[in-house]
Amino acid sequence: MDLAAIEQEARGRLDPAIYDYVAGGADGELTLADNLAAWARLRLRPRVLRDVRRVDTATTLLGTPVATPILVAPTGYHGLVHPEGEAATAAGAAAAGSLMVVSTQANRPLEEVAQRAPGAPRWFQVYVHVDHGFTEELVGRAAAAGYSALVLTADLAVLGNRLRDVRNRLQFPPGMVLGNAVERYGTGGADVVAHASRFDAGLEPATIGWLRDCSGLPVLVKGVLRGDDAEAFVAAGAAGIVVSNHGGRQLDTALAAGDALPEVVAAVDGRVAVLVDGGVRRGTDVVKALCLGASGALVGRPVLWGLATGGAEGVRAVLLGLHEELLRAMALCGAVSLAELTPDLVARSG
Amino acid sequence: MDLAAIEQEARGRLDPAIYDYVAGGADGELTLADNLAAWARLRLRPRVLRDVRRVDTATTLLGTPVATPILVAPTGYHGLVHPEGEAATAAGAAAAGSLMVVSTQANRPLEEVAQRAPGAPRWFQVYVHVDHGFTEELVGRAAAAGYSALVLTADLAVLGNRLRDVRNRLQFPPGMVLGNAVERYGTGGADVVAHASRFDAGLEPATIGWLRDCSGLPVLVKGVLRGDDAEAFVAAGAAGIVVSNHGGRQLDTALAAGDALPEVVAAVDGRVAVLVDGGVRRGTDVVKALCLGASGALVGRPVLWGLATGGAEGVRAVLLGLHEELLRAMALCGAVSLAELTPDLVARSG
Amino acid sequence: MDLAAIEQEARGRLDPAIYDYVAGGADGELTLADNLAAWARLRLRPRVLRDVRRVDTATTLLGTPVATPILVAPTGYHGLVHPEGEAATAAGAAAAGSLMVVSTQANRPLEEVAQRAPGAPRWFQVYVHVDHGFTEELVGRAAAAGYSALVLTADLAVLGNRLRDVRNRLQFPPGMVLGNAVERYGTGGADVVAHASRFDAGLEPATIGWLRDCSGLPVLVKGVLRGDDAEAFVAAGAAGIVVSNHGGRQLDTALAAGDALPEVVAAVDGRVAVLVDGGVRRGTDVVKALCLGASGALVGRPVLWGLATGGAEGVRAVLLGLHEELLRAMALCGAVSLAELTPDLVARSG
Amino acid sequence: MDLAAIEQEARGRLDPAIYDYVAGGADGELTLADNLAAWARLRLRPRVLRDVRRVDTATTLLGTPVATPILVAPTGYHGLVHPEGEAATAAGAAAAGSLMVVSTQANRPLEEVAQRAPGAPRWFQVYVHVDHGFTEELVGRAAAAGYSALVLTADLAVLGNRLRDVRNRLQFPPGMVLGNAVERYGTGGADVVAHASRFDAGLEPATIGWLRDCSGLPVLVKGVLRGDDAEAFVAAGAAGIVVSNHGGRQLDTALAAGDALPEVVAAVDGRVAVLVDGGVRRGTDVVKALCLGASGALVGRPVLWGLATGGAEGVRAVLLGLHEELLRAMALCGAVSLAELTPDLVARSG
Repeated sequence: MDLAAIEQEARGRLDPAIYDYVAGGADGELTLADNLAAWARLRLRPRVLRDVRRVDTATTLLGTPVATPILVAPTGYHGLVHPEGEAATAAGAAAAGSLMVVSTQANRPLEEVAQRAPGAPRWFQVYVHVDHGFTEELVGRAAAAGYSALVLTADLAVLGNRLRDVRNRLQFPPGMVLGNAVERYGTGGADVVAHASRFDAGLEPATIGWLRDCSGLPVLVKGVLRGDDAEAFVAAGAAGIVVSNHGGRQLDTALAAGDALPEVVAAVDGRVAVLVDGGVRRGTDVVKALCLGASGALVGRPVLWGLATGGAEGVRAVLLGLHEELLRAMALCGAVSLAELTPDLVARSG
Repeated sequence: MDLAAIEQEARGRLDPAIYDYVAGGADGELTLADNLAAWARLRLRPRVLRDVRRVDTATTLLGTPVATPILVAPTGYHGLVHPEGEAATAAGAAAAGSLMVVSTQANRPLEEVAQRAPGAPRWFQVYVHVDHGFTEELVGRAAAAGYSALVLTADLAVLGNRLRDVRNRLQFPPGMVLGNAVERYGTGGADVVAHASRFDAGLEPATIGWLRDCSGLPVLVKGVLRGDDAEAFVAAGAAGIVVSNHGGRQLDTALAAGDALPEVVAAVDGRVAVLVDGGVRRGTDVVKALCLGASGALVGRPVLWGLATGGAEGVRAVLLGLHEELLRAMALCGAVSLAELTPDLVARSG
Repeated sequence: MDLAAIEQEARGRLDPAIYDYVAGGADGELTLADNLAAWARLRLRPRVLRDVRRVDTATTLLGTPVATPILVAPTGYHGLVHPEGEAATAAGAAAAGSLMVVSTQANRPLEEVAQRAPGAPRWFQVYVHVDHGFTEELVGRAAAAGYSALVLTADLAVLGNRLRDVRNRLQFPPGMVLGNAVERYGTGGADVVAHASRFDAGLEPATIGWLRDCSGLPVLVKGVLRGDDAEAFVAAGAAGIVVSNHGGRQLDTALAAGDALPEVVAAVDGRVAVLVDGGVRRGTDVVKALCLGASGALVGRPVLWGLATGGAEGVRAVLLGLHEELLRAMALCGAVSLAELTPDLVARSG
Repeated sequence: MDLAAIEQEARGRLDPAIYDYVAGGADGELTLADNLAAWARLRLRPRVLRDVRRVDTATTLLGTPVATPILVAPTGYHGLVHPEGEAATAAGAAAAGSLMVVSTQANRPLEEVAQRAPGAPRWFQVYVHVDHGFTEELVGRAAAAGYSALVLTADLAVLGNRLRDVRNRLQFPPGMVLGNAVERYGTGGADVVAHASRFDAGLEPATIGWLRDCSGLPVLVKGVLRGDDAEAFVAAGAAGIVVSNHGGRQLDTALAAGDALPEVVAAVDGRVAVLVDGGVRRGTDVVKALCLGASGALVGRPVLWGLATGGAEGVRAVLLGLHEELLRAMALCGAVSLAELTPDLVARSG
C-alpha cells in the first residue's frame, strides 16, 4: 500500500482547513512528528529460515475475537471528509475484519453506525460531559447497540492548542450535526473548541468504575503515557489501557506513544490488555508495537484518508493494505503468530 | 497564541537591523538555537484522570507575591521597537499580572517605568559601571522607586560578538536616550559596543554584598550556568540565581539554559530561588523549567515582539497568551498548582 | 573513483523505472539509507608512521584464494541494465580479480556466465523454489559448472514492498528471459512479484544441509542479522554467513548491515567466515567491515552502475576503483594486510 | 571577525578549482565537516563574576615564547592564492604575534620566508622524500635559517582521494615553483598527486630520531589520532604531538581532531606538548582545545582566506581576529590565563 499517496489524494479532495484539522497537531507539532519517528527509530532484528507459509494475526481483545490487531482509533467528525461519515467507516472496517472504536463526537448516531456493520466488533469512545446524566444516557445507548467496551478518553481535560485551526479560523460546516447529541445540543457547526467546552475537566480514577457500573461494559482508559498512571487505573478497575497522546493533538512534546509503551507494558504486567495509537503508518510499526507488548494498534488518520478518498471501500482498502503489510512484516521477521512477536525482534537504531 | 506569527508581524514593522539586534545572538548563534532546542528535547510525561478544573499559578518570589511564574526578562532599549519604550512594557506586564525586570539600559528612566505600573511587582537589572558611584546612585534610585530586588548581570564582562550587528553596521538612532543615564552620558545613539565599554569587567562575588548593602535590596545573580558558581554566589549573599546565557547573545556555545538548570538547582538545594531564561517560547517550556526546579521563567524577545506589534496591549497579549498556555499545559499534565510540577513529569526525548 | 558520478551516468542511460528498481528499497527506504549511514557513523582511528610501501589484500574464502576481499554481491536481472547481462559482469569481475556471486535470477544461464570467466572464482546464489526438484537441478548445474559454493538467500520468504516499483507500475521487458529457468518457465517479462511467487516460504535450517548434500558444495546463508540465527545456521552446517538485509529491499527498518555485523561475528566466533553486504560504497567502508570481523564485503548496486555505464569494462573499473580505495585506506590506517585490520581501528562518531 | 565573509570574499577572488583545492577534503568530506562539528558539539560552562580586566594568552611552546596559542598550520602552495605566497603569510603571522609552521611544499624557499619575519618564531614542516638525502638537506637548511622545530607529517603515506580535484581535473599553474625543491625538481606545475609520489611511504617511529639527529631540532609528529601512537612517538623521541587528520584531506571518516584530542592528551600525560588542528574557526574553538589539554591550536584554511583577500595584511587580520575572539571567549569564561582553561569548562551538548 502507498499510504502517502492516499493521503495526498485525500488532501487534494478536502478543503485545506479540514485537511489541516485532521492532519495537524498541537503547538509546534513536535509530538505529532515524534509519534512517527518513535517507530522509525526502532530497528527490527528479523529471524530467517523459518517456515512462514501460514501467518496468523487472529487474537482476542477483552474477550472479543478479532481477525487482526489493527483497530480503528476513535476520531471525531467523519462527516467532514465523507458524506456518509462514520457509517461508511464502520462498513469499511467490518469488511476488513477490523474492530472500530466509534467516537462520542461522531456525526452519525452510534445506533446507525452499529447497524451498518451488525456483525462486526465495536467499542464506544467516551468523552465525559459536564452533564454526567447525558454521558450515562450515551453509554447506556452504546451498551444497548452492541458496543462491547468503552474507551474513556483521559487526555482532553482541556483542548490542545491547534495552531493550524487558529490560523485557518476553522469553523465546522453550518449543517454539521453531532449524531449522538443532536437532541441535546441541536444542530449547527460551531467548532471543536465549543464542543470541548462541554467536557468534564474533573475526571478521576473513580470515573472508570462509574462508567463500568452505569453501562455494564468493560472500560479502557485512553491517553495514558506513564506506568504509575496505568497501575492506578488498573487498580481502579480499568479493563485495558490505550497508550496514546491523542495523535499529538493535545499536549505538545508529550512522550511519543512508542516511547511510552514499554513503561506502561511493564507496569501493567499482563493484568489487562495494553493497546497503542499514534504514528502507526506501516505494518512494521504494528509489528514493533506488538513486540513491545501491545495487544493491538489503533490507526486514526490513515482511516480518514481512506474514507476521504473512497468511502467505505477506501477505509477497507487502507485497513487491508495495512493488514497485508503486517502479514508481510511478520513473515519477514520469521513470526507466524502474534505470540511470536517478542521483544528481541526490536532494537534501537544507530 | 501564535507567537511565531507575532514575531513575523514585528519583523515586518521593524527596521531589519533592529529586528536583527533583538533576534540575533553571538557568533554562530548555536546557543541561541540550543536554548530553544533544550526545551524541545525534553518530553512531558503527563498525568491523566486528575481533577484539573481549577489550576492555580500563583507563587511568591523573594517575598513578592506574583500571579504567574512567567516574568519579563530584562532587555535593553525598548524604545528601539516602540516609542513608549519600557513604560509601555511595564503597563502591559502589569495588566498581565507579571513581574517586570527593568534594565539599566532602558530608554525610559526607572522612575517613569515604575509610575506606569505603580501596583505591579518590579525588579531592577544592574550593569555595574566602571564608575561604581554611578551604579550606587542607580540602585539607590531603584530602591526609592519601589523596585524590590536587584538582578545583577554577571555574563557581560565584555560584549559578545554579534555578527548580525557587525554585518548591519548597527547604529542606534541619533536621538536615542539612555533614560537612566542621560544626565551622566548625555543623549545620542552610539551603539551597544560603546555602551558596554562603560561596564566593569572586574566583578567578583563580593559585588553581590556591595550591591545589597548600598541598596538595601536582595540581589539575584543572572547569567549563571554552573553549580559551583551558584554555590559560591549563595555563600556570598545572593538572594536568587537566574540561570541564563544572556539569550545566546554573549558566549556562543555556552550551555543552553535548560541544560544548565538541573545542575544549578541541585547545587542551590532550595536555599534561594532559581529562575531561568533563554528560549522560553511556550507554556510547555515554562512547565518544564518549573518541573526541573525553577521558581519562575523569564521571557525576553517574546515581550519585545508584543511591544513592537501592539505597545502595552501587545505586551499584555503575549504575556497572557503564554499564561494561558501555561494553564493549559498544567491541566494536560494533571497539575493544579506549581507545587505539582515535579521532576517526574519530564523525560529526555528519543 | 567517483562512484556517485558513475551512478549518475547510469541513471541517465537507464529507463527511470529500471533505475528505480535497482536503486530503490522497501517501504520508506529507511534501511536502504541506514545501510550507508551505518558505515558513515563509524570513525577510523588510523595508525601512522608505519611502513606501508607494500599493502596486500589477498585472502582465502572457504578455501578459495581471492586477490581482494571485495566481492560481487548476487543481484538479479543484469540484462535490465546491459545487453550482455551477467556475462559481462563476470568478465569484468574476473578482470578485477574479484569473486562473483551469480544469482538464480540471472538473465544468462549460469554455464554461460562461468564460461566468460573460466579461471575466476565464482559462487552461486540460491532461491529455493517451491518445486525443490528444480532447485536440486539448478545447484547440480552450478556444481558442474565450477561454482565452488552456494549462497542461500534467507530473507525473501515473501517479497518486500518496493514502493518505487508500485508507483512506476514496473514491468520487466517482454523479451526478458530468466537464463537459468527458461526451459522451466518459458520467456516473457512478468515482474519480480511474479517471479518471487515461485520461491519457497517454508525454509528452515535443515535447508542448509539439504542443499549441501544435493550439490556437494559448501553453503553460506545470506540475509542474517542476528547472532542466535547465525549460531543456529552454523550448527546446521552453514559454511559461512552473509550479514545482509537484502540491500534494504525486503524488511524496511531492519537493522543496518554494519550495525548487525558485530553481533554475528561474536556469535560465530571464528568457526566459519562472516561476510557482509549493504551500503558498501567506499574503500573505507570495506576497511570498517573487515575491522569489525568480516572476511569480505560484497557490493551490489555499484557493480550494476559500472555494468550500465561500461559493460564488462565498467564493472572492472568500479571494482578496481574500490580496490584502489581499499589499498589507500589500508595504507592511511597503517595496515599492510587484512590481518592488521583490527577492531581498535574503528570507533563510534561524535 | 566575520570569517565566513572573508572566506566568501576569497572564494570570489580565486579560480573555482583553486578554491576547491583549499576548501575540500577527501572522499565524502565527512571528516572535513566533523572537524568543525566536533568543536560545535562541545558546550562551554563559563565561570562568571570573575575579575577579567586583564587576560593573558602568552605561553611557551617547546621552549619558544609565543604571544598567542593560535599558530599557523602548515599548508602548501600559498602562491596559489597570492603572488607573494608564504612570504606574505610569514609577514602577516609575525605582525599578529603568531608562530608559523612553514611547509615543505611552500612556493617560496624557506630562507626567504624566514627573512620576511626574522624575529618571529617559526617551525618547519617535513614531508620525508623517498630520497632521504634531499630531506636531510632540507632540514639542515631549516635549522640554519632559524626554524626552531620540525613538524613531521605522518598522515600522508599516500595521498587522500580528493574528489573535488578529480572532478575539476586540477592542474597547478604552469609556472608554479616548489620553492624548497626547485633545484631538485625544476619548475612546472604538475599537481599534488605528482608531488606526493615523491614522499616516502615507509616511515616509522625511528624516523623521528633520524630527523632530530640530522637537524639538531626537536621534532613534533603531526597527524596523530590515537593515544597508543602518541605514546610510541614520545618514547621514540618526539618533542610534541599534533593531533590532526590533515584537515579532512587524507583518510575520510577518520576521527575528528577535537574528538581524538582527549585520548592523546591522556596518553601523553604532560610529557610533551600536544597541539591540535582541524576545524578551528572561532575563539571558542581555541578555548575548547586548550580546555581539553592542548597547548596550542593551529589554523590552516582561515589563514589562506586571509592571504587570498589581503596578502600579509589579510593574514594578520584573520589571526588577530581569532586572537580577539580568544580574548573575548576567555573573559566570558572567567579565565585570565591559559592555565585557567581547565577541562571543567567544557561539556558535551544535548
